Amino acid sequence: MGKEIERKFLVKGDAWKALAPGIRYRQGYLNSSFDRTVRVRTIGDQGFITVKGPNNGIARLEFEYVIPADDANEMLTELAEKPLIEKNRYRILRGKHVWEVDEFLGDNAGLVVAEIELGSVDEPFEKPEWIGEEVSGDPRYYNSNLVAHPYSEWK
Amino acid sequence: MGKEIERKFLVKGDAWKALAPGIRYRQGYLNSSFDRTVRVRTIGDQGFITVKGPNNGIARLEFEYVIPADDANEMLTELAEKPLIEKNRYRILRGKHVWEVDEFLGDNAGLVVAEIELGSVDEPFEKPEWIGEEVSGDPRYYNSNLVAHPYSEWK
Repeated sequence: MGKEIERKFLVKGDAWKALAPGIRYRQGYLNSSFDRTVRVRTIGDQGFITVKGPNNGIARLEFEYVIPADDANEMLTELAEKPLIEKNRYRILRGKHVWEVDEFLGDNAGLVVAEIELGSVDEPFEKPEWIGEEVSGDPRYYNSNLVAHPYSEWK
Repeated sequence: MGKEIERKFLVKGDAWKALAPGIRYRQGYLNSSFDRTVRVRTIGDQGFITVKGPNNGIARLEFEYVIPADDANEMLTELAEKPLIEKNRYRILRGKHVWEVDEFLGDNAGLVVAEIELGSVDEPFEKPEWIGEEVSGDPRYYNSNLVAHPYSEWK
């Protein structure tokens, strides 16, 4: 399996918002240790629990199960590490690629990022007018950092 | 979701052993923190993942899902905290209630406890002659503690 290349950008304005329906994601961790993570999330009205092993570079063990959304929401509210990550995700087709625009809510409200998956580092792609500065590889924008240091607390 | 009310007792003698077949349990924790536990286990040839909230006296949040036994065994071997807990469980009907007697093996050999699930905190129940001291809420007997401090190491 080839390595997937993702590039991440900040998003300008709100023209992107009319281009796709937003689907609500709500997620949190029951365990976020180095050795394994246990994530609970809802995507729309579906619930999931996902167990992942450590990052070993090549392959990472992953087990995901569909669970009742009510269970997932109760675990998120009562048991998960806080703050939760809440966002609306918009999947926007542009040329041959899909942009995933994440509009964060809650403690990360105000942050909007867009990701595109490419087959190689130099694969060309259309850049919509609402795409701003590239933040690929900037650890401040990792999901784990958005729990520990939410956007609302940034200087 | 569910709230379980359980009372736990030590077990005396071995008269209980002839009252039901023992079923092998193998289990381990993906998280055994104070705030929540995530347990994976096999019961005979079935797999389960179970999330529980903190112990608040004798009522606690619990969510359990059936998963493939192969997944459960892979998570137990590759990801769970060690040592695993292995035991034989005997389900013994007495009056209107089922007593679950756990005969621990491995690092916890010698420990035998019995649990009864009740509909309310003050629900009456028959107490068999082999039931000893109550240990409900005693953290030494939590399964998670039996991983960190197995019975064989107790003074």
